Amino acid sequence: MKKIVLLLFCMLTALCVQAETVSSPNGNVIVNFQLNEKGIATYAVSYKGKEVIKPSTMGLSLDKVNFTNGLKLIKSNTSTFDETWEPVWGEVKHIRNHYNELVVTLEHIADGYQLDVRFRVYNDGIGFRYEPRSGNANFPLTYHTVMKEHTEFQLTDNHTAFWIPGAYDSNEFAYQTTKLTDIHALKCDKSAIGTNHIVGDKTIQTPVMLKSDDGLYINIFEAALIDYPAMLLDVETHNGYSLTSHLVPGTTNAVAYMQEPSSTPWRTIIVSDKATDILASKMILNLNEPCAIENTDFIKPQKYIGIWWEMHVPNHSSWDYASISGIRLKEMNWEKVKPHGRHGATTENTKRYIDFAAKHGFDAVLIEGWNVGWEEWSGLWKEDVFDFVTPYPDFDLDVVSQYAQEKGVKLIMHHETSGSATNYERRMSDAIALMKKYGYDAVKTGYVGRIIPRGEHHDGQWMVQHYQRVIEKMAQNNIMLNAHEPVRPTGLHRTYPNLLACEAARGNEFNAWSVGNQPEHETILPFTRLMGGPMDYTPGIFQQKMDHYQAGNPCQVHTTLTKQLALYVTMYSPLQMAADLPENYERFIDAFQFIKDVAVDWDDTRILEAEPGDYITIARKEKNSDTWFVGAITDENRRTATIDLSFLDNGMYKATIYKDGRDAHWKENPQSYQIEQKMVKRTNTLKIKLAAGGGCAIKLEKL
Amino acid sequence: MKKIVLLLFCMLTALCVQAETVSSPNGNVIVNFQLNEKGIATYAVSYKGKEVIKPSTMGLSLDKVNFTNGLKLIKSNTSTFDETWEPVWGEVKHIRNHYNELVVTLEHIADGYQLDVRFRVYNDGIGFRYEPRSGNANFPLTYHTVMKEHTEFQLTDNHTAFWIPGAYDSNEFAYQTTKLTDIHALKCDKSAIGTNHIVGDKTIQTPVMLKSDDGLYINIFEAALIDYPAMLLDVETHNGYSLTSHLVPGTTNAVAYMQEPSSTPWRTIIVSDKATDILASKMILNLNEPCAIENTDFIKPQKYIGIWWEMHVPNHSSWDYASISGIRLKEMNWEKVKPHGRHGATTENTKRYIDFAAKHGFDAVLIEGWNVGWEEWSGLWKEDVFDFVTPYPDFDLDVVSQYAQEKGVKLIMHHETSGSATNYERRMSDAIALMKKYGYDAVKTGYVGRIIPRGEHHDGQWMVQHYQRVIEKMAQNNIMLNAHEPVRPTGLHRTYPNLLACEAARGNEFNAWSVGNQPEHETILPFTRLMGGPMDYTPGIFQQKMDHYQAGNPCQVHTTLTKQLALYVTMYSPLQMAADLPENYERFIDAFQFIKDVAVDWDDTRILEAEPGDYITIARKEKNSDTWFVGAITDENRRTATIDLSFLDNGMYKATIYKDGRDAHWKENPQSYQIEQKMVKRTNTLKIKLAAGGGCAIKLEKL
Repeated sequence: MKKIVLLLFCMLTALCVQAETVSSPNGNVIVNFQLNEKGIATYAVSYKGKEVIKPSTMGLSLDKVNFTNGLKLIKSNTSTFDETWEPVWGEVKHIRNHYNELVVTLEHIADGYQLDVRFRVYNDGIGFRYEPRSGNANFPLTYHTVMKEHTEFQLTDNHTAFWIPGAYDSNEFAYQTTKLTDIHALKCDKSAIGTNHIVGDKTIQTPVMLKSDDGLYINIFEAALIDYPAMLLDVETHNGYSLTSHLVPGTTNAVAYMQEPSSTPWRTIIVSDKATDILASKMILNLNEPCAIENTDFIKPQKYIGIWWEMHVPNHSSWDYASISGIRLKEMNWEKVKPHGRHGATTENTKRYIDFAAKHGFDAVLIEGWNVGWEEWSGLWKEDVFDFVTPYPDFDLDVVSQYAQEKGVKLIMHHETSGSATNYERRMSDAIALMKKYGYDAVKTGYVGRIIPRGEHHDGQWMVQHYQRVIEKMAQNNIMLNAHEPVRPTGLHRTYPNLLACEAARGNEFNAWSVGNQPEHETILPFTRLMGGPMDYTPGIFQQKMDHYQAGNPCQVHTTLTKQLALYVTMYSPLQMAADLPENYERFIDAFQFIKDVAVDWDDTRILEAEPGDYITIARKEKNSDTWFVGAITDENRRTATIDLSFLDNGMYKATIYKDGRDAHWKENPQSYQIEQKMVKRTNTLKIKLAAGGGCAIKLEKL
Repeated sequence: MKKIVLLLFCMLTALCVQAETVSSPNGNVIVNFQLNEKGIATYAVSYKGKEVIKPSTMGLSLDKVNFTNGLKLIKSNTSTFDETWEPVWGEVKHIRNHYNELVVTLEHIADGYQLDVRFRVYNDGIGFRYEPRSGNANFPLTYHTVMKEHTEFQLTDNHTAFWIPGAYDSNEFAYQTTKLTDIHALKCDKSAIGTNHIVGDKTIQTPVMLKSDDGLYINIFEAALIDYPAMLLDVETHNGYSLTSHLVPGTTNAVAYMQEPSSTPWRTIIVSDKATDILASKMILNLNEPCAIENTDFIKPQKYIGIWWEMHVPNHSSWDYASISGIRLKEMNWEKVKPHGRHGATTENTKRYIDFAAKHGFDAVLIEGWNVGWEEWSGLWKEDVFDFVTPYPDFDLDVVSQYAQEKGVKLIMHHETSGSATNYERRMSDAIALMKKYGYDAVKTGYVGRIIPRGEHHDGQWMVQHYQRVIEKMAQNNIMLNAHEPVRPTGLHRTYPNLLACEAARGNEFNAWSVGNQPEHETILPFTRLMGGPMDYTPGIFQQKMDHYQAGNPCQVHTTLTKQLALYVTMYSPLQMAADLPENYERFIDAFQFIKDVAVDWDDTRILEAEPGDYITIARKEKNSDTWFVGAITDENRRTATIDLSFLDNGMYKATIYKDGRDAHWKENPQSYQIEQKMVKRTNTLKIKLAAGGGCAIKLEKL
């Protein structure tokens, strides 16, 4: 009898197809939500009348309920939101957050559990997320586990994709540019990183950048990744062209443990017929929550140098102090250990960097390798690698912090965890106490190596929670954060602007000791990894070729010197390193002037030209100033950057132009450059020749 | 060519059988070590000429080398050790540590890795452990992983075993008494504990107590479990009677991650032809390292009461404060939460307990449920369950700590972790700071629930390391520890005497809400769980039947009232609770006198009678006193305890005898008792009748 009633109930409520539609404020982006006769939910997206996402299934499987079919539509709500907010730091002074929202409430007919799907439709794309609720179920959903997410992105054609292979522990791969059908993740190079196990041949990382043959640019990613695993995408091209959510697992058969009220991160699709719009989009930021830090005075965009590149280049210094093994932190007497003599983070060397920073106006000096444990820091899956408070005998914290203070330079703390997050968490309070004692207000964290708790992954839920705990604990202590090897950022810096930058991609360092980053690399990063937030890419390498340090060494930075300057503008970050050695800057002191001058916080940004994998030209207006900076970069092909100066105010500007020499070439002659000054005004258009792998950097001062 | 050389080498070095023998100081226990022609190592044990352990294989599989065959004997060393040491607290004033040691150094012929097997042979049994070393291998063993341990205990016959089923997360099972061939772990009751998943039908826990038909008592266990998983035993009776090591796994395919110099815990076999010798053995303690705590003044054996039993009995109070769910600690305003009115740990109730403790001379009061989070503490696999610092609104820490101080009573802190060890570790510093602020010098920890890091087990390596971190951190802060639901203890209290007691077995609490502990339970525990260290069994329940609280409730304590008194002597612990409600003690104030009088630290101990599963009679001499206390207990059968008083000094003693009433019976009439006083001397022998499930407690004061 019960079954018959249930059947009747289903027939009455679910047998008809139900649909809802919501459009962007300007009407260009339209989302169609539909629930079919089986109670399966789908959505579809169009842009200016063109199909972007074909009807694609949505759903979430929890331990208690399968929100994949047998759903009925309980209600739907639409609303409009429009506000303009001011970021603590950013590319522009004000950000408009303007969207139309559709919330459909679905009920799992058999159980009564409910699922809200919340869509936000912007002029530049859409975000949606799942919000499971107890609804009318007999048992509350209060604590539940997510077994699988079923989000599809059915694409319309065999688009060109800019992608990296899917992995659970690393994003440090070279980008591939292929048709969807030609994705073979297992063929990708895994140079030099131990934790980059590739998940499968048809699994890729987000964000993925897509370009259709008919001129659409589509970026698929996620926003506000908190308390949930990161999303990879499984590619299927046998029957259409679909991408399906693939969540990073933990140590059990579930992917996430949730507490009601709970929601997934936003699944995002940014779309435009202009590549420049993708780079200008603020949708990811807008989908994050407003700033959660009450007093943000301690947060300061900044430029820094550091004892760091000298550990990457051949034949130079090292993080470690001695050639020993079998360290047990509790039992060590470091004063009795014989140093090998190549240790980089010595008191004297640190003073030298502090002097250089003070002389050239840098805000801070990062010192890596200051603390004991580096002799066995990597690859051992060891838990107690570092204690974060004990300096090597040749690094005098009292002396260097006093010296830095006298010179008006800040020191940046370094906490390499070696992936041992449990160890870091239990020692973090002591580590922060040390920072407070010595006046550090910023920390670079690192997660090189397999994660402890063993079996967890860098990008799984537990570690996402860990990074969040670190962000919040640092914020509570007025400390700025730069995380290396974390999960890729998803716009969380709106909520926690003390998170100045992350790595979570293949940085400049790869050029020092691997096949490196091909010249196109920096033209793709802004369309992919940087969609989620600033990257500590560490630009500014003037000595490109490693044979300078070691005869015959084939490694090199795959850009001209001038392109390194342009990166300070094209790779947005409020935290920029001048990564090369002080002595290299002394050799090219005129070019170095641009790094000294370039701003790190902005009132305005104009994406002048852009094509993923090919070129990017961006102009930015310095915060509280009339000065503009322009960066233009190209891939392995020469090109002429066209810089329409109409963004300038009326009046004359002095342009200082750092451009590639006539004979410059990233491989053959990277250090050929010219510096030119001329007067320009808003009606001018500059045409600047970029060498192969080259770039151009311009400072525009209002007279 | 290489292969031929290797073969020749093997033939020259390993083809002959090699043997080593070592005996106990008195010659009763003999260990024969042998390496056969395949390079497989075995050991055998005899006692007074009787075979105890038949030749049994030994071995360890690491990621780098398989120490299971292809071994050759490099060298062997024997030595003798004899010292007498004084425990910080204990059953006796001095402990003699007297053994003969044999160390055989084995080399894995193919690789050059070496394995020391260290045997220590005592008059009461043997211990051996594995110590893998790099030896002559090309690559150091510095960091290695243990994939499997291959330790066999080949028994001589189908012994009677006193066992509990093997589980990775709990030891809280009722004991089974069967022949080895009748072990069926999957048939065991799993009453009321959520984490007691049974591993398999033929896997049992250690320690296991064995009794042979020809009168040998054999206990198999381990000592000094540090930095390694706990050992279970797989039972095989198809071809002989063997027990094989089964290590608790972690989240990977390895069982332990080690750093050289490394060693396994000791695998122990205690043997005698007298059951009383098993209980008197100090071998487990002797196999642990000497005290590692410099100043032990803060460590004080003690008796306590607590707000605890009232949460176990029906219709009484609760740990939690309100009927709410979905708690997020960071967002809660507890002042606004409506209490349900049954909360036990209120300021007023705590004062009542403090008054009772002060009036009756107890050292301390434990208060459970004082801190927020108990509404959702169990079964949810939630990470941030407790913060260990926020009291419920009706518990005023200032008031109760001030009140306790004025009354000369200590408070015992309670840190229930709910199994979320990561959460505890990251909050432990703050939790300890709160303890220091309010003068707490002891803490009871708890681990009810599935472990976080998820996938780890209570008794796996990571958690063993966790418990050790807690022990050491508490020691550094001069805090005594009583751990509930940890791994079973293995004598670590020699090294860390701040570890006063553990639970790690089925305690008295089960009697309040389950089928309970059968009358034989307390006659087996000293032969099994207590071999590794004191248990916080929480004796002293005077109101046995739960229908006192709730009509018709069938639960009850499975002893007479008098047996509850006897447990203070038979269940050795330096930390003893008077677990029942104050009002129940007031009802039987004359019997309560024994609990008030009985000591918790001893200069001497005599095991007068003992048979596992049947009865135990023990006499103990109070520390720095001439007073003796005697406890005698029986199982479900009536018996007469024979108490030969020859352990007394010359002279007269006043004996106060608490014994079962004539009509006493654990089930029918548990509260029937008699108290009798008489003069006795060392030439007397007392014959005391114990009821079914009964006992007897005696205080002997020298006149």
